[in-house]
Amino acid sequence: MSKRIVGPEIEKLIQLLAKVPGLGPRSARRAALHLLKKKEQLMGPLAGAMAEAFDKVRVCSACGNVDTSDPCMICTDPRRDGATVIVVEDVADLWALERAAAMSNVRYHVLGGTLSPLDGVGPDDLTIRQLVERVAAGGVSEIILAVNATVEGQTTAHYITDHLAGFDIKVTRLAHGVPVGGELDYLDDGTLAAALKSRTAF
Amino acid sequence: MSKRIVGPEIEKLIQLLAKVPGLGPRSARRAALHLLKKKEQLMGPLAGAMAEAFDKVRVCSACGNVDTSDPCMICTDPRRDGATVIVVEDVADLWALERAAAMSNVRYHVLGGTLSPLDGVGPDDLTIRQLVERVAAGGVSEIILAVNATVEGQTTAHYITDHLAGFDIKVTRLAHGVPVGGELDYLDDGTLAAALKSRTAF
Repeated sequence: MSKRIVGPEIEKLIQLLAKVPGLGPRSARRAALHLLKKKEQLMGPLAGAMAEAFDKVRVCSACGNVDTSDPCMICTDPRRDGATVIVVEDVADLWALERAAAMSNVRYHVLGGTLSPLDGVGPDDLTIRQLVERVAAGGVSEIILAVNATVEGQTTAHYITDHLAGFDIKVTRLAHGVPVGGELDYLDDGTLAAALKSRTAF
Repeated sequence: MSKRIVGPEIEKLIQLLAKVPGLGPRSARRAALHLLKKKEQLMGPLAGAMAEAFDKVRVCSACGNVDTSDPCMICTDPRRDGATVIVVEDVADLWALERAAAMSNVRYHVLGGTLSPLDGVGPDDLTIRQLVERVAAGGVSEIILAVNATVEGQTTAHYITDHLAGFDIKVTRLAHGVPVGGELDYLDDGTLAAALKSRTAF
């Protein structure tokens, strides 16, 4: 959009919307136009919700989740006793696991990324020390490493396992295998090999 | 996202983001998380830009464009004398034509939709009367009907042409033909027939 045809305020709105993941330069224009048309119903409330979230959002000092309270709703949930802690790379992974709702009594620990020497990410850039301190403080009986199945994820998992070796806790990781609903024909060799190796009784 | 795991402010932000075109429920969560992480760099400025646009945006009383001034930047541009007016269905079409920058001295008239008896949209729901008044006020020598090539768009174009019949002005419409960069094999019969009929000297 050239400067000539809309005011600088709309221009700026489009530029900022284009930085939201899921929106590109083209869809940002469409989104901006929709917001301008639905001023009262959508743009006003959305601006308010963002301003409110901006004021209230905190990073949980216990687990690294983002929420409007610190400690977050998960850490303060009385049904979660903290005996099982799932270690994730990112808040998005935490939310994904919660949506799956497979384990209701767990707490989390957000690493903030993975070890990646090439990108200059070392142990001190992640919350590994805090994880070890959390375990040292007691009450944890199992750590589930739910990092991504990438080289960096697995390297990080190994690093964490080494640093938790001195504690009397179980350290587990997510199972590898065929995704539910997945078709064998489309799966890579590594996944098929892992699924065969970890086959279970039918 | 169930209520249990994030505060109501974040919940509300996700719900409102999901109403933005281009974002669905899943990408709204991803967008919200990105905004929460980039609080200072993105969420704050975006909330501010929306609040500012909310306060300042007007619909241009002359042409129906949205802008922060009324009349809009296009209607007040001294290089545009108003002799040629392009009639479009929607502000998005106006912006698209401006981006194409094929004609630099035109003004616009936004209809606000197309005639659609089935949806209860009649002539009074569009700005057809205002268009006729604009032409009657003088200074217009050509009206270009740049409505969509749909049944509703063409019906609306015919209706407008009838109401402008009494004035000594040219009424034109966009050419039909092969899109630039388009492959004949993928085009529909109607477009190919129109392109053949309107063939030009090479």
